[in-house]
Amino acid sequence: MSYISVPEGQPGIRGLMMFRPETAKALNLLVEELLQIDNGLSKGEREIIATYISTLNDCLYCRSVHGAIAKYHCEGDEKFVLDAVTAPENSQLSAKMKSLLAIAKEVQKHGQNVKQSHIDEARNNGATDLELHDTVLIAAAFCMFNRYVDGLGTIQPTDKSIYDSIGKQRSEEGYLTKPVVIKL
Amino acid sequence: MSYISVPEGQPGIRGLMMFRPETAKALNLLVEELLQIDNGLSKGEREIIATYISTLNDCLYCRSVHGAIAKYHCEGDEKFVLDAVTAPENSQLSAKMKSLLAIAKEVQKHGQNVKQSHIDEARNNGATDLELHDTVLIAAAFCMFNRYVDGLGTIQPTDKSIYDSIGKQRSEEGYLTKPVVIKL
Repeated sequence: MSYISVPEGQPGIRGLMMFRPETAKALNLLVEELLQIDNGLSKGEREIIATYISTLNDCLYCRSVHGAIAKYHCEGDEKFVLDAVTAPENSQLSAKMKSLLAIAKEVQKHGQNVKQSHIDEARNNGATDLELHDTVLIAAAFCMFNRYVDGLGTIQPTDKSIYDSIGKQRSEEGYLTKPVVIKL
Repeated sequence: MSYISVPEGQPGIRGLMMFRPETAKALNLLVEELLQIDNGLSKGEREIIATYISTLNDCLYCRSVHGAIAKYHCEGDEKFVLDAVTAPENSQLSAKMKSLLAIAKEVQKHGQNVKQSHIDEARNNGATDLELHDTVLIAAAFCMFNRYVDGLGTIQPTDKSIYDSIGKQRSEEGYLTKPVVIKL
């Protein structure tokens, strides 16, 4: 049971969003704009940043949902995504993505940890202003989402198929449609 | 200079919001809904939670702006706000607010740090589900904003009058109006 009364059987952020639809609207607009565009970074790369931060923050719900969305954006390649978010340096990611994840990792610890040298490294690997901006904001936003979901003690199922059904829907429809029905 | 090219002379999140108006829209909607309502928690109390987290995260821009907004919502009482965000336990805050700030402090460190005992304490002091929800989400959101502003190396002036003019405007108009002109 979560720390507050949310609709029964609604895991993670779903229950919180039903409890407080006014803030849900703003939060969904934010992820729609940050994760559902292919501009510089692809949708798959954006979801990998979100999943990486949620992994560092040990948030089961967020890393499972966004890991599943990333998988669907990456041609179903679950191993590629898992390698990227658990050991990015040794993964098949591009040099640009590796240096952007290095920035995201610093953001997860503290904003002031990001130094000019991290930025220079990413620029040397081809990162643009927009990609740097979106990397930092995605990383910062998941430091929010992870704390929101964990801080209110939400239900976080261990059944992988639940996350897969959410991931499939969000990869196809984005974040602004009515959530797929889930029975816990 | 910030790490990316933002309009000249625009400090903190202002420059970032001008650089990326699509995400700015979602972020402003979020704070409008979280900070600009008197529902359970007053606007002043909501801004104190935001300022407290920004103080813990050592984000000069955010703690200065939201500290100034809080002051305007609290009848101009700067000392009351400063005491509340630097040593809440010894401040003039209500017992309910003290226990909500104790929850916010745990959220700032890690979502999973919030325990049932923190929630019970706040409920014993009169906190409702909505107040618990909004406290956790405000704390989580400022873990995002602080990382966003610091992680992109934005300009953060030390001139207090700049923050005061932003604070006055936002306390009167909320977060959805065009920003007051600032010359650095």
